[in-house]
Order: sequence, then C-alpha cells, then structure tokens
Amino acid sequence: MLKNELFAQIREKRSFLCIGLDTDIEKIPPFLRSAEDPLFAFNRAIIDATHDLCVAYKPNLAFYESLGSAGWVSLEKTLRHIRSHYAGMFVIADAKRGDIGNTSGLYARAFFSEMDFDAVTVAPYMGDDSVRPFLDYPGKWTILLALTSNRGAADFQLREDAAGHRLYEEVIRHSLAWGNDENMMYVVGATKAEKLQEIRTIIPGHFLLVPGIGAQGGSLEEVCRYGMNDQCGLLVNSSRGIIYASAGEDFAEAARNEALNLQIEMEEQLLEAELI
Amino acid sequence: MLKNELFAQIREKRSFLCIGLDTDIEKIPPFLRSAEDPLFAFNRAIIDATHDLCVAYKPNLAFYESLGSAGWVSLEKTLRHIRSHYAGMFVIADAKRGDIGNTSGLYARAFFSEMDFDAVTVAPYMGDDSVRPFLDYPGKWTILLALTSNRGAADFQLREDAAGHRLYEEVIRHSLAWGNDENMMYVVGATKAEKLQEIRTIIPGHFLLVPGIGAQGGSLEEVCRYGMNDQCGLLVNSSRGIIYASAGEDFAEAARNEALNLQIEMEEQLLEAELI
Repeated sequence: MLKNELFAQIREKRSFLCIGLDTDIEKIPPFLRSAEDPLFAFNRAIIDATHDLCVAYKPNLAFYESLGSAGWVSLEKTLRHIRSHYAGMFVIADAKRGDIGNTSGLYARAFFSEMDFDAVTVAPYMGDDSVRPFLDYPGKWTILLALTSNRGAADFQLREDAAGHRLYEEVIRHSLAWGNDENMMYVVGATKAEKLQEIRTIIPGHFLLVPGIGAQGGSLEEVCRYGMNDQCGLLVNSSRGIIYASAGEDFAEAARNEALNLQIEMEEQLLEAELI
Repeated sequence: MLKNELFAQIREKRSFLCIGLDTDIEKIPPFLRSAEDPLFAFNRAIIDATHDLCVAYKPNLAFYESLGSAGWVSLEKTLRHIRSHYAGMFVIADAKRGDIGNTSGLYARAFFSEMDFDAVTVAPYMGDDSVRPFLDYPGKWTILLALTSNRGAADFQLREDAAGHRLYEEVIRHSLAWGNDENMMYVVGATKAEKLQEIRTIIPGHFLLVPGIGAQGGSLEEVCRYGMNDQCGLLVNSSRGIIYASAGEDFAEAARNEALNLQIEMEEQLLEAELI
C-alpha cells in the first residue's frame, strides 16, 4: 500500500486507529476456548465488528508463536480473512525481527511473500544490513523501533552520545539513508508524546506507529498535538483496551464500542487539523 | 541445563561447537526437496551425522518462519528428534526476540514451555522488561545480543556515550542487574575477536555464543585466545560452513567432516588451556 492510499483510507474512515490483535488464549472469553481454532474465532469476530472503524490491524507474533505451529495457522487464517473481506486494510506483523542480512531477508520473505502483510516491525540493534532486506519489497513497509512505550525504553534508547544525541534519534537519523517516507515508519510510544515534537523535526513526513494509548496510559490528544502532520502521519494502536473490553459473549460488541469511542476522538482530531 | 552440566558436556565431547541449523529450503540438496518434510529430513540427517561432535544446535527461526506454519512444524519435529535421541544436547532458539514485558513473557513461554529449548537469543533494544521475562525459567538461558558479527553492528553497537562507553558494553553492564552467569550468555561475533578481551574484564564467568567462524571470516584460535575462561565459556557456532558443505547425496557425511575438523581444532584449544 502506498502512503497516499493509506491517507485516503484514513480520510474515508475518519480514523487512524490500528487495532492490536494481541490474542492471548488465556484472555479470550472462556466459551471460545472450545472452538476448533480459538484464536482465529476470536480474531474473526473482533475484525468483523470493528473493520469500519480502523485502518489497520496489528497481530503481535508472540501471541501466535506461543501456541507453536497451531498459532501460526491461526495467524495465517486471520490474515486471509482480512484480505478476502476487507480491501484496503493495512496489516502489520508486529514481529520486532532483525538478524544478519541474509537471515533478515528470510524474515522479509516470510511476512511479505509467504504471507501478505503490508508492514513488519523491525528492531534496529543489528544495524544497516539487518534492516535493508525488508526494504526490498515495493509497496511494503518497514516499521523501525525508535522510542518504545515500555519502561525498559529508558535503558538504552534514551542513552546520549558524546554529542548529546539519544540512541533513538540516531536510529532515526541513520535509517534515513536506508529508506524514505514511502517505505519506512517508526514506532514511537504514546507514553513519550512530548518527544514527538523533536522527532517531527527529523522526520516531518513519515508515518509513526504509536502504541501505548489506553492500557499503557498515553493520551491521544497529546499524540496528535505533537505528532500529526499534513497526511495525518499517525497510526495509533490500541490492543487490550479494545479486544478485552468484555470477557463475555458480548466481547465483539464491547470491542466495537471501545473502537468507536477512539474513532470518534480521532475524527475530532482530523477535523481540527482540517484533514477531513 | 546448568552451567557445570554444559561444561561437563564440553569436556566429554572435547568440543564447544554449536551447529547452526540455518536450513534454507533453497539451499538443501535438490533430491531432498521432494521429501514429505524437507527441512526436517535435512536436519535429522545433519544431526544424526554430527551429534557426537557438537554440544549445541542452534536453529535460526527465520528459516522456519519463512515457510509459515509448515516451517514451524519442521522446527518442532527437529527439536523432538534431538530430545528423544541425544540427551544432554543444548538447543538454542536463535530468535532475537524482545518486546514489552507481558509480550516477551509469551515468547519465553513459546520457546521454553511449549517447545523445550534450553536457550533463546534476545535483542536488548527495548531494555529491562523486554529481557527479564526470559529469566523466569529455572535452568533456561537468555542469550543477549551484545556485539554481533555483521557489518551493521558498527551502526549502533559501537556508538560511544559521553563517558566513552560503547553501547554493547552498556548492554552487558546493564544486564548484570537482570541475571547472572547461570542464566545469561552473550552473543559476541568472532569477527570482533579482539574485543573479547575487554568483554572478559566485565563478564569473566559468562558463556559467550560466538557466531562468525567460517563463512563470516572469524578465527577460532583468536576467539579462544581472548575469550576462553576456566569453564571454556565459549560456544562457537558454525552454520553454512558445516551444513552446506556438499549439495549432493553425501551432504550429511560432508557436514560431519567439516564438524570433525572444527572439533579437532577445539580439542587442541581445550588441551592447551588444560581444560581436558
């Protein structure tokens, strides 16, 4: 998907919501656990109930891998369900992969060729050749971890070099030689909203994937104030706050209500920025 | 597996070889591609031909994931084959995972509970809470990326902070608060052998997983000179140089010959260090 197509989806749906499919077998409604494929049954219901309110879905691979090959099958079925029913959806493999060049190339093949994801999250620690193979697929996106939303982000990402530059800034600056705003995005946590302003001085045009709204405490209004650009430039993710809104038979309806609340807030922000 | 059990295996086999099962469907001998499960057929033959020459196997997950759920099944079968035939083998999931705390916990569950790996490689970029969940499994090991063997290692890992400390050193120092030499190891590339001496001043007792021998150009003798400690403290990995030694029907025998050459060199190093 191209950047202007993503922006068109955002305008059409009046939303820049990404729903994180962090589907944990131990957290889905108990009655679903006897389904033939509980993870897929859950995901399908969530997707069918929310697809008009979001522009992206983001399965986190850990939740599928924790079930071994069976989880991998659930993931493949989830992706096929989205592709066959909801054209224009942006689907992110939240995998945080990264390995030496030829090996990263295989991860890229896994997510972009074997499966038809639009984007994959990539960890920058191994540098240049660990990231570039993901950029070889036209129309696909590499979403590089920059400043994450978790506590441990402070350990290394905020570390300053002799010139006073923090590691996450160096990651962003360095990566500008690898790709551009048509094939790279960055993960910037909502819990660090005030940093978005500085980040926008380095990458005014790139899309940012922003986790940490909701369960992790980030504020949508602040994220928009500091991070929105003239093509929105934001995919704001919410996972647990939406998909586990209810543990009962009404889980999909409850998820829709939570997604709707966020979509309404996002519509306000888009209107205020005169993007719709 | 405990550290002294690993050392006992090293003494018994007179080897600290780790064989990387980077099993690429496009590189295995053509006649195997028609097997029911080509990756597993290849791995089984390699393992059966080399198990007495190495103390560890290290499947890199990318190669299995690139085939989707089918690859995941090959991986599970490979692990079961090792477990049911070769007691005392140390098996590493080369996964380079790392995510926010609760999510890393699921990766840990995948590799340590669902599957019975002894160790998993972990990327440090997300810090503290992304690594700790892997340390919650007694007898299991977290192998943290420190200084990798690839070109891109220079981009961020060698970056100096204001005090002159490089990022990989900070990763090692910081992580000493998370675990100890009974549950953590570090990846240090053989292509950076001269750095091993400095690293040993920070972590004299830890095991190091050393990739980059062979295809990537590192020297075993240098790695031992700078990195060996009184319990060996090294697992030296070779992947392509062993498993793709021949593309013919003699691939397993050729792999054994390559592994044997390394085992003989390792035996010499162990004798020289008076560890056997």
